[in-house]
Amino acid sequence: MADMKIKGVIPPMITPFKENGDVDYQLHAENLEKWNKDNLTGYLVLGSNSETVYLNEDEKLELIKITVETAKKDRIILAGTGMESTRETIKLTNKAAKLGAHAALILTPFYYGGKMNDEALINYFTDVADNVDIPVLIYNVTKFTHINISVNAVEKLSRHPNIIGMKDSSGDVPQLVKFQSVIPESFNLMVGTASAWYPALTLGIKAAIMALANCAPNECALVQEEFERGNVEEAREIYTRVFPVNQAVTGTFGIAGLKYACSLLGYQGGFVRKPLLELKEEEKEKIRQILAKAKLM
Amino acid sequence: MADMKIKGVIPPMITPFKENGDVDYQLHAENLEKWNKDNLTGYLVLGSNSETVYLNEDEKLELIKITVETAKKDRIILAGTGMESTRETIKLTNKAAKLGAHAALILTPFYYGGKMNDEALINYFTDVADNVDIPVLIYNVTKFTHINISVNAVEKLSRHPNIIGMKDSSGDVPQLVKFQSVIPESFNLMVGTASAWYPALTLGIKAAIMALANCAPNECALVQEEFERGNVEEAREIYTRVFPVNQAVTGTFGIAGLKYACSLLGYQGGFVRKPLLELKEEEKEKIRQILAKAKLM
Amino acid sequence: MADMKIKGVIPPMITPFKENGDVDYQLHAENLEKWNKDNLTGYLVLGSNSETVYLNEDEKLELIKITVETAKKDRIILAGTGMESTRETIKLTNKAAKLGAHAALILTPFYYGGKMNDEALINYFTDVADNVDIPVLIYNVTKFTHINISVNAVEKLSRHPNIIGMKDSSGDVPQLVKFQSVIPESFNLMVGTASAWYPALTLGIKAAIMALANCAPNECALVQEEFERGNVEEAREIYTRVFPVNQAVTGTFGIAGLKYACSLLGYQGGFVRKPLLELKEEEKEKIRQILAKAKLM
Amino acid sequence: MADMKIKGVIPPMITPFKENGDVDYQLHAENLEKWNKDNLTGYLVLGSNSETVYLNEDEKLELIKITVETAKKDRIILAGTGMESTRETIKLTNKAAKLGAHAALILTPFYYGGKMNDEALINYFTDVADNVDIPVLIYNVTKFTHINISVNAVEKLSRHPNIIGMKDSSGDVPQLVKFQSVIPESFNLMVGTASAWYPALTLGIKAAIMALANCAPNECALVQEEFERGNVEEAREIYTRVFPVNQAVTGTFGIAGLKYACSLLGYQGGFVRKPLLELKEEEKEKIRQILAKAKLM
Repeated sequence: MADMKIKGVIPPMITPFKENGDVDYQLHAENLEKWNKDNLTGYLVLGSNSETVYLNEDEKLELIKITVETAKKDRIILAGTGMESTRETIKLTNKAAKLGAHAALILTPFYYGGKMNDEALINYFTDVADNVDIPVLIYNVTKFTHINISVNAVEKLSRHPNIIGMKDSSGDVPQLVKFQSVIPESFNLMVGTASAWYPALTLGIKAAIMALANCAPNECALVQEEFERGNVEEAREIYTRVFPVNQAVTGTFGIAGLKYACSLLGYQGGFVRKPLLELKEEEKEKIRQILAKAKLM
Repeated sequence: MADMKIKGVIPPMITPFKENGDVDYQLHAENLEKWNKDNLTGYLVLGSNSETVYLNEDEKLELIKITVETAKKDRIILAGTGMESTRETIKLTNKAAKLGAHAALILTPFYYGGKMNDEALINYFTDVADNVDIPVLIYNVTKFTHINISVNAVEKLSRHPNIIGMKDSSGDVPQLVKFQSVIPESFNLMVGTASAWYPALTLGIKAAIMALANCAPNECALVQEEFERGNVEEAREIYTRVFPVNQAVTGTFGIAGLKYACSLLGYQGGFVRKPLLELKEEEKEKIRQILAKAKLM
Repeated sequence: MADMKIKGVIPPMITPFKENGDVDYQLHAENLEKWNKDNLTGYLVLGSNSETVYLNEDEKLELIKITVETAKKDRIILAGTGMESTRETIKLTNKAAKLGAHAALILTPFYYGGKMNDEALINYFTDVADNVDIPVLIYNVTKFTHINISVNAVEKLSRHPNIIGMKDSSGDVPQLVKFQSVIPESFNLMVGTASAWYPALTLGIKAAIMALANCAPNECALVQEEFERGNVEEAREIYTRVFPVNQAVTGTFGIAGLKYACSLLGYQGGFVRKPLLELKEEEKEKIRQILAKAKLM
Repeated sequence: MADMKIKGVIPPMITPFKENGDVDYQLHAENLEKWNKDNLTGYLVLGSNSETVYLNEDEKLELIKITVETAKKDRIILAGTGMESTRETIKLTNKAAKLGAHAALILTPFYYGGKMNDEALINYFTDVADNVDIPVLIYNVTKFTHINISVNAVEKLSRHPNIIGMKDSSGDVPQLVKFQSVIPESFNLMVGTASAWYPALTLGIKAAIMALANCAPNECALVQEEFERGNVEEAREIYTRVFPVNQAVTGTFGIAGLKYACSLLGYQGGFVRKPLLELKEEEKEKIRQILAKAKLM
């Protein structure tokens, strides 16, 4: 597994909740059944779009379990098991490993952001990677953490035999070039937002974990397919067509917007968990318009 | 309890760890024994300086339990039971209440910062306050959360019968004036950093929860005493004298610095938990110099 | 002049424009005639509130000339002569000196902000102070420049015989304490915003240059007078009463708001210069309400 | 001119200064003679890399004059004539027009950043474009201005008959996609930094104004040529090879670094103007290494 080469599109799966706030495991399984038929490479359970910070450990483990059981057999299963402390991250990651997750996507710790310098982050990821039973990928998501891992730290960590990649959700394309310039070829540098998907492909990036793949998985995959077939105009056309949808479901309307788009497009969005707010009616209307304009419905 | 009027100094207690990373409950109790003899109004267990984000639930509950058992009887015990989700916050707060905490200091949820608008924060704190068995105080700590609760939200929330105060750790003195202008008199507006303690007193603030009170509790209390006796020059002299210590143990050197200062001044700092880094020898020397210059040792 | 000790309130004077965008020098002189009767210590011509970045050199010099001619004789005249380049700053400052300005308030250069480190700023202010015919004060206004001069740079510069003070407009009260801890007693540390005026007084600050002093000079002065008479409650009452006006005329509504408030309160606001926008009618109504609530009209 | 279609690479020309701080017009002309032989589309005089904020009006006009006189006849000459005020911008732009500049690159006003909302920026650019004798391009450079023009404002302004393009120096590739989605085809959307040059080409961008083109004009041009010939691997190879040079001369070492690189590569860097600092010897060594590694020397 440590020489896993990831190519293609992976949704950071939403977690559907019931109106009373309970996780709706049934809907999660139904989503997986449907995604199994889509052109996807794997699944991320417990990413930022899964409202992971709102889940307790039992819920997290149950979601991993269902994902492993339900996912099509050839698909890579990543679990987002990063906690703020090194020891809790190791514990949770090993539980995920036992349940069958193939690799762990580990968020940079961030609460004490001013102290998360290169030394602290290098120690953290090294300690985790040394003590867990599955390969580790770094998760850099500045928008939520207000931490941006340095090129220097990535250079060092990308040499660790059990750190096999990184999801960079910054949307900062020149930064991808910087990361590319220091990593070994085996290291899976993945883009973490659909807003950078086509430019990333032109730079040689091979995989993406992106919110948009929840509701428009095949369009996301087709960008890559067309690009690889040499149909760059077609690739770019699809990318720019769905671009506004991505803005809507990651920026403007956030997870509630993503879930509503999922519901409109045949998946099960369910409710968000509080304190997140459900969409207002006029926001729903906006999303319907954006999906229509992007020819997704 | 809901008409609790808080006056004086409260340390957001450090959590001493053993070298192997376990919580050192024994040292926590020893610190409490010593703080019991200091001029303090109460204790905050599970604040930012407690490395709370690194603790699991069992550890949190044990720390509350020991605090309740060990604290001098007249002292107010606040527990930092804010979680990202409304439901987990309610659950943990009620467990803390059962263990004897007097009130809960609840952090603004922040991971999905872009979505934590006034409506979301007002709903969150209202839901929590409606469903917990002890009074609630709002915890605004922009440095860590990158969220700054609005004057408008505070105005609304300060009218809730079970929301009795706020700790504002921004260090932004004009912002305290804005908050003061909208809250009822019964609402406990507390300053959350020693860097603003004396100016806050001159504005009529009566209480503080501040890191510095871990290692220099009596100096913190004396600023207030002298100020209230009309000895403003003396109050200001103590404030400005310990100001650089506060900068060192909250800014430059962070929690590891605070713990080292505690150890030097008769308390039990213990180790930090990873991924936080222990101080280097030259950093320790710097702290010794700063404490000496402030006449704390 | 280099041992000038500044005490009291100084307005960073607005520049009234005609509807066609020309400077209305006549109105500027009329404002000065009126301020001459107010309880003010001096005048700042060409500050941020003067729309200085919109003025050409001829206009700047004419405004200085009129200010020198019209100001009551005992009043200190400061001119904001900072330009981005060292040489242009020196040239303009010496022209201002020749016209009779008593001292120059020099903005930190900021366009190439990433390069304005301590060494660059120390060199800049030293070069300027060495080559101009009047004393220099540092102008730190992070809100507009996105530069915040360091305590270390202020410590060094405050020793220069021709650098006699600083206006810190950050509103960051703890930062004032840091600056106080490194400057010689002769150095005039002035607060640059009314939002920090009363807390600054309690810290021993003696002077302020603040937008609010354009439209409410006597209230600003009275805060200090009452404070110095030992009437701290009265001082604080006035401060908190006019605080929302300050928010309105510096934050929410900016210079157009300040000018409108001036016009309502007996001064000559005139028009703003483009690209600044005039207030909309509903914004004017808001300001009238705020002034009424603060008992200024 | 208003239907000018810009394609290719344009250097935002450095301004060489003498050691005493005077503009070295002779060196400027020599640079132009050399650039005339390079594969360039035109020249920007008075851009951010020209230290324009340090130049007085006479110097600006002289630089425009020399540029017009010396530039190869087929080359487009852009002049950076944006000032903070609408009226001064119009005046300077018309002087530039009279001297022979073909179009004006107009910086977003930014000092009163909080007030530069869509309405203010739309009014500003409209007023300028309505009143000047040459076409206007918008200059968006967040790094220096802390302003980021909105997609909405660009949509409106791109319809103005005399606003023919924009330089976006943000380096934010997804933002280019947003701008592309709202502009008419005739509008010249140009990338303003070499860090985004290759990704921008893959998105259909046709022109760039970028610091790196001062010292490595032909490499910059070759990225585009190879890309257009369908040699995407070659294009990307050159782009990634010179990428670290761009980081060095725009980020780490700034204009002093760019000038030193120019001097090493056959152009005339000259001195920077104060308060900018000259490079230290170890910084020069670093640049030599970076240029060598990029095979530029």
